[in-house]
Amino acid sequence: MDWKPDRQSHLTIHVQIIEWMKTRIERGDWTVGTKLPTQRKLAAQFEVNRSTINLALDELKADGLLESKVGSGTFVANNSWNILLNKSQPNWQQHIEASIHKPNYHTIQLINEFEQKDHIIRLGTGELSPELLPTKKIERSLKSLSLESRAIGYSEPQGSKKLRSVLCEYLKKRGIDTAQENILIVSGALQALQLIAIGLLEEGAIIFQDNPSYLNSIHPFQSAGMRMIPVQRDGNLPDTLRIAKRKKQSLFYCVPTLQNPTGCNWTIGERQTLYHTCKQLQIPIIEDDVYHELLFEPSSSPALKSFDQSGQVLYVGSVSKTLSPGLRIGWVVAPQSVIQRLADIKMQTDYGSSAVSQEIVAQWLSSGLYESHILQLREQLKLRATFVENILEEQFKHIATWKKSEGGFYIWLRFKEPIVNKAFFLNLLKKNVLINPGYIYDTSDLHHIRLSYAYASLEELTVGLNSLIEVIS
Amino acid sequence: MDWKPDRQSHLTIHVQIIEWMKTRIERGDWTVGTKLPTQRKLAAQFEVNRSTINLALDELKADGLLESKVGSGTFVANNSWNILLNKSQPNWQQHIEASIHKPNYHTIQLINEFEQKDHIIRLGTGELSPELLPTKKIERSLKSLSLESRAIGYSEPQGSKKLRSVLCEYLKKRGIDTAQENILIVSGALQALQLIAIGLLEEGAIIFQDNPSYLNSIHPFQSAGMRMIPVQRDGNLPDTLRIAKRKKQSLFYCVPTLQNPTGCNWTIGERQTLYHTCKQLQIPIIEDDVYHELLFEPSSSPALKSFDQSGQVLYVGSVSKTLSPGLRIGWVVAPQSVIQRLADIKMQTDYGSSAVSQEIVAQWLSSGLYESHILQLREQLKLRATFVENILEEQFKHIATWKKSEGGFYIWLRFKEPIVNKAFFLNLLKKNVLINPGYIYDTSDLHHIRLSYAYASLEELTVGLNSLIEVIS
Repeated sequence: MDWKPDRQSHLTIHVQIIEWMKTRIERGDWTVGTKLPTQRKLAAQFEVNRSTINLALDELKADGLLESKVGSGTFVANNSWNILLNKSQPNWQQHIEASIHKPNYHTIQLINEFEQKDHIIRLGTGELSPELLPTKKIERSLKSLSLESRAIGYSEPQGSKKLRSVLCEYLKKRGIDTAQENILIVSGALQALQLIAIGLLEEGAIIFQDNPSYLNSIHPFQSAGMRMIPVQRDGNLPDTLRIAKRKKQSLFYCVPTLQNPTGCNWTIGERQTLYHTCKQLQIPIIEDDVYHELLFEPSSSPALKSFDQSGQVLYVGSVSKTLSPGLRIGWVVAPQSVIQRLADIKMQTDYGSSAVSQEIVAQWLSSGLYESHILQLREQLKLRATFVENILEEQFKHIATWKKSEGGFYIWLRFKEPIVNKAFFLNLLKKNVLINPGYIYDTSDLHHIRLSYAYASLEELTVGLNSLIEVIS
Repeated sequence: MDWKPDRQSHLTIHVQIIEWMKTRIERGDWTVGTKLPTQRKLAAQFEVNRSTINLALDELKADGLLESKVGSGTFVANNSWNILLNKSQPNWQQHIEASIHKPNYHTIQLINEFEQKDHIIRLGTGELSPELLPTKKIERSLKSLSLESRAIGYSEPQGSKKLRSVLCEYLKKRGIDTAQENILIVSGALQALQLIAIGLLEEGAIIFQDNPSYLNSIHPFQSAGMRMIPVQRDGNLPDTLRIAKRKKQSLFYCVPTLQNPTGCNWTIGERQTLYHTCKQLQIPIIEDDVYHELLFEPSSSPALKSFDQSGQVLYVGSVSKTLSPGLRIGWVVAPQSVIQRLADIKMQTDYGSSAVSQEIVAQWLSSGLYESHILQLREQLKLRATFVENILEEQFKHIATWKKSEGGFYIWLRFKEPIVNKAFFLNLLKKNVLINPGYIYDTSDLHHIRLSYAYASLEELTVGLNSLIEVIS
């Protein structure tokens, strides 16, 4: 929507707007049922008065091209104009509603949309601040990249050999001893989950998960028809799993190191119990380990995969939380038959991940660039965590509780009152503050927000947290 | 599988092999049921005699770790050793068989696998030869790429604004007048099909297509539970569609310009008939237009999208057939509601395409680099087509027929006898020649191969076509 009326034109502004809108509708860019932006927004975009917009819309309504629905806005109407001109458009809305994949929750769609706007303060984003990304260093490393022609052709089903071989070395530091043929390169950890959902599980399979869980805010398994069962990591875990599982196919999804959204870190005991229980019950585990390098202090957080002797654990890693999400590079480590299966589906889905991105990641991991970047990044995140914790200490102590961050991006802030509902989210959005409310990770949770100190600048964090206080009071 | 026995070790070679294999099994890299490579292959990989391999395998069989099945090879066995050591592995094979997504056909899995091997002559590949890729120029353009921090963060749902804005200009040359908000950046055209399958269609929806069709060799729609109906483009088309469609949801998939696999080019009349018929019947069209820039002579091949006034056509393009498949960049042009829906699912699937790849494509399209590359590429492909047609003329005239290529990569070679079956494919593979047999595009077709002059070198093309003649006689 970057069009603006031409002030030099012989046509009046409102006629130009009418013509522009007619063209959108005529060309089918705006199909029947499309909701128009608000008058305020249109006025801002076209840099005209609202009265001009009003005039144009009224005329289009009179033509029957648009209609207003009280309280919900202005829509493209299914009207006689269509029939007069003998136009027939597919009813896309009907297509969308009948189709297979679930839409994102509305709150998450709003988050995805508003995250892109410059004036928004992002208090919940699962992403590093642009200032924490090694942009200039990546730019420099691009200059020294030498490409082979084969490398920019279609990729091998499992991904670049060079990157997989570099990953074998890299994973040793995480206690994981593996081989190239046990690795699949994916376009980020989320794609790994998607491939596992459609490649290894039957419809109706059970996915066990922590509660709250990151999986509830995306839904690769839910969209594929799987049942999500939240479980508590307590003494009853073995019984809970045994009873819930019965004879069903199942899988346990977890983020044992710096869990998303809570930021909490499983103890060694909890890791071992989960692994051994799942082994005994033959429940495969997805270990999502994308945050482990961001632990502030060296601690005993071994990967489940490092004590996997039975091919039970599907290990998922990525550079999205450390180097750059824009590269879209992650990996899965798993038994060979699983990797081949997932690679086969990946070939059917997108024919592999970006070759240039794979080259960059291989270069960073093998040259030491990555390691030294992580050291700096960890210090930066630690400073930011402390900064936010100080604000919390000063301003939130009477209304909320939290745990000191052990690493990663998040503080799981718990309000004493159940105030975090959709209205709360929208009120903050009106103040240009975007939060990740707890209910996207656990629908029944109205107490938490996932506070991220990783994205917003220190100034924005201050302003954003102030707005939070304002909206609460 | 890059491990080799250590000839300096105090352990004998065959004991090292046993230990290595035990580790693979113990760690679960080779789960129960995994098929081992042939003895010949293992011997070649480890650089040892077959007798040494034999010795090692015999010992592992005696231990009960492996078992041979007559005629089909050696497998990891589900044996008492597992129970003795109290190991339990998930039955991955069972998981795979019960899961949602269909595997690729075996022939296609073999193609994907063998395409990666250096000694193989690829006579059917849908990919440019490494020597036709502008590798050095891409490398140079990387050096001048300046990245913004926001650009290497998570992408906007619809993809980079810069690239979408460049695409609006680029698409004008194809007669397509569109706007940024009607474009979605995808990781190649295949991902577009995948997103449309799960985002716009209900299970059981009908997909009309040409016969033979590229879609039969991948299967984004089939895996999502859709019905494929081949149709002839003749005078009966309107009736055929009306009768087959009834009240079902449906969609028409086509490659009107340089069709895959036949290389044929629809006439303007055929294009208009299809568009108007589909418009009348409200059947949306996917126009897969990835080859159009490779037409050898300027001809009247307008995009269906260029006369779309009803939002009926979902237009799909990509740089995979022209610039580099390894970049994994394509695009969809469609009504806004469709684009938003597909973008929403893409966010759930992989959170966007590689930022660096998007930057490169934007640079190439906007700087003129792309256009001048295409001009050269077209000439190169024309030379290659003529070269292959000369060989066909000399050696294949008595056994096969074909049409002179009008552009793109392919000649749809028709053998007079129905000789192109799986055995034929495998016999050629034994001679290190990989073909794309017609039956992967139409299961009942035993007459054709999709001959590609785009990948193999001229020398390889000569040798490969000779092998073809040898296997036939």
